[in-house]
Amino acid sequence: MGFFTKDIQTFDDLFVHTLRDIYYAENQIVKALPTMISKATDSSLKQGFETHLGETKNQIKRLEQVFKMHGVEVSAVNCPAIDGILKEANEVAGEVADKQVLDAALIAAAQAVEHYEITRYGTLVAWAKQLGRNDCASVLQQNLDEEQATDTKLNSLATRGVNRKAA
Amino acid sequence: MGFFTKDIQTFDDLFVHTLRDIYYAENQIVKALPTMISKATDSSLKQGFETHLGETKNQIKRLEQVFKMHGVEVSAVNCPAIDGILKEANEVAGEVADKQVLDAALIAAAQAVEHYEITRYGTLVAWAKQLGRNDCASVLQQNLDEEQATDTKLNSLATRGVNRKAA
Repeated sequence: MGFFTKDIQTFDDLFVHTLRDIYYAENQIVKALPTMISKATDSSLKQGFETHLGETKNQIKRLEQVFKMHGVEVSAVNCPAIDGILKEANEVAGEVADKQVLDAALIAAAQAVEHYEITRYGTLVAWAKQLGRNDCASVLQQNLDEEQATDTKLNSLATRGVNRKAA
Repeated sequence: MGFFTKDIQTFDDLFVHTLRDIYYAENQIVKALPTMISKATDSSLKQGFETHLGETKNQIKRLEQVFKMHGVEVSAVNCPAIDGILKEANEVAGEVADKQVLDAALIAAAQAVEHYEITRYGTLVAWAKQLGRNDCASVLQQNLDEEQATDTKLNSLATRGVNRKAA
């Protein structure tokens, strides 16, 4: 985008750009989760990742619904943030020798992903409301609620067993 | 690190690695904040970034204190996550034509940074406690509290004026 012009002219443009950013991110997460599932040892963690893979696919459908509600093309823009977060997750996982320590590292990596999504959906919900698109805000809020619930579940898995086993 | 061996053998290694990751991140944030200060138009936002620059420098000192308390060398490891988050912040800011839309974009970018720090400090506090290092946990908790307070302030700036002006 934009070698000679600035492509984001209005607040609405910024909203759509950020929608395309999280759309790219969710699609990358769908690709990354199977590896995390295969690396996890703790059965609750493995199952949690599997559940979240299903949720993420549904979140992508909700985003496509928001694009349509807002009358813009369903498309993605590059999101260096999620690329960096997932690259770091892979690098750290590749450095860990012990399976139980790896589970703790996988939870931390997944929580970094969740927090990225939480911040983006939080922003998008606020912007949609400001733009008078309460209909879009309400769909985006469903994704936000799921990401927050996933983060809480990961916290609980970490503190109720995974960290203790890793230590 | 580690072409032939896995460098993270124990839970303690993972804790130290993640400490070095956030140490790198905080140092990158200190470098990025002056640009965000110069780009911000809203005076409360500009002042908020200035305050946070001071806090970030103090957070780096607290991290150095934790390295010493834990008896390990103060050092950084590359953190592709923060590099990606900051790269995205720069790219988006470069695409925005209008100053008031740019303020909204800067808040969103800063909140992505805050959420990365919140997730890492949340993890480090839990791991420090699991390792029996309540002394380290207590210092890391101070950084976590500051990041959460900054995120709340950014939310308030966005919803109490910046988003309305941008729209």
